[in-house]
Amino acid sequence: MNQRENADRFRSLHASGELLRLPNAWDVGSARLFEACGARAIATTSAGLAWSLGYADGNHVPTRVLEAATREIARVVNVPLSVDAEAGLAKDAAGTRETIAALIGAGAVGVNLEDGTEPPDVLRAKIEAAKDAGVRAGVALFVNARTDVYLKRLVRGERACAEAIARGRMYRDAGADGFFVPGLSDPESIRAIVAAIALPLNLMLVPGLPNPSALQQLGVRRVSAGSSIAQAAYSLARREALALLGSENAAATPALSYPELNALFV
Amino acid sequence: MNQRENADRFRSLHASGELLRLPNAWDVGSARLFEACGARAIATTSAGLAWSLGYADGNHVPTRVLEAATREIARVVNVPLSVDAEAGLAKDAAGTRETIAALIGAGAVGVNLEDGTEPPDVLRAKIEAAKDAGVRAGVALFVNARTDVYLKRLVRGERACAEAIARGRMYRDAGADGFFVPGLSDPESIRAIVAAIALPLNLMLVPGLPNPSALQQLGVRRVSAGSSIAQAAYSLARREALALLGSENAAATPALSYPELNALFV
Repeated sequence: MNQRENADRFRSLHASGELLRLPNAWDVGSARLFEACGARAIATTSAGLAWSLGYADGNHVPTRVLEAATREIARVVNVPLSVDAEAGLAKDAAGTRETIAALIGAGAVGVNLEDGTEPPDVLRAKIEAAKDAGVRAGVALFVNARTDVYLKRLVRGERACAEAIARGRMYRDAGADGFFVPGLSDPESIRAIVAAIALPLNLMLVPGLPNPSALQQLGVRRVSAGSSIAQAAYSLARREALALLGSENAAATPALSYPELNALFV
Repeated sequence: MNQRENADRFRSLHASGELLRLPNAWDVGSARLFEACGARAIATTSAGLAWSLGYADGNHVPTRVLEAATREIARVVNVPLSVDAEAGLAKDAAGTRETIAALIGAGAVGVNLEDGTEPPDVLRAKIEAAKDAGVRAGVALFVNARTDVYLKRLVRGERACAEAIARGRMYRDAGADGFFVPGLSDPESIRAIVAAIALPLNLMLVPGLPNPSALQQLGVRRVSAGSSIAQAAYSLARREALALLGSENAAATPALSYPELNALFV
């Protein structure tokens, strides 16, 4: 299937009645493995991919490195490929346009772009730049706009939902194709955001998230694992390594947290 | 620590009284993680590295790809780095010299080279070429010569031990610094090979292998995990992916075998 067809296919996976389930890949091998498991599309975890390549998460991976990884994943995977581009690996819209153009050139038909702690205006401009990169490449790029309102607790308590809705509208107006709210899990806020934002809503697997059929009932269109599978894999690897190295109680070593993994590459 | 010092350090790790334990890394992230776990050196698993990069094991990874991966691992790891170069990623000695020169240039101070199903004369010439590449680069490269007599059952039964010894002598005479016999696990043959070959003996973790202190008693100097940790990590990832994708009994899915993982990339 060529890239344009895959772009259409990826878009349609958000429009079907069935929740799109994405076990995020962190390297070429896991991407191919998850495709073989039946994943309808492959989406990368920015944290997992950064760690596997020896970088911390958070816009530290050089663009050429993410581009090369994207190209290699696209080489072995036939289903649509979406790449988490963090905050565009750039400070501004111009840099984001270059990053996204490189990822499309490498085979991506979707990207995630996040606001993080930057003002939402910054992501709005980056979304416009990313969509423009898609138009220039002739690929109907699916831009999944992520707000970190919940994940980074940018706004606490009841105001979080209103802030997420305000940002979602801004990102939709900028051309976003999907809205990603990692950290969101309470059904009432999920329902409110689904009702307010005319974009497919993507949630991330977190403790307390409703199960897939409940998510589907709530109108969520996409659920993704984030870095959780990569973390589990590296945590198991640490236990096995410690056992070989002669550590006592290696099997009881706790799982690696996101900050612990990230700190290895700072 | 610079590369020449690391080369000396890696050699000395085989000469100390303590068994060198190597939880083989399959990507930049696991290399850094295993260093943080206390590994005295990092050695790669060719199979795991190939899978993570989207290739089958067995001389299929392009040299430039293995070189790039080596450079990235060396970027984040301070302990000595040894790279499994399979059969030199080449048919002959000349090609092996180029491969090994590239790996040294990328930061490796040790390599594994295997005979596989080729006649042992082929590996003898490759070992000479690899040592020559080290001399030219001014790095005292540690060449770990691997025979697949046991792993690939090239010779069966009692004659296997004699064949391994004959090959070990040939590889030592060609300049090898270590002798790697994956698949070997019976104490009597281990003892015979240690007595016959004046090189540090490396064994691979396989079911039935004596425990580390027993290995040390038998005179073994190095034990490595092979692809086992990478396989465990990808197996866990498959279970978690299948669970997210809604597969029933995902948790009971068996571990991925070497042939299953390899087949994903053919």
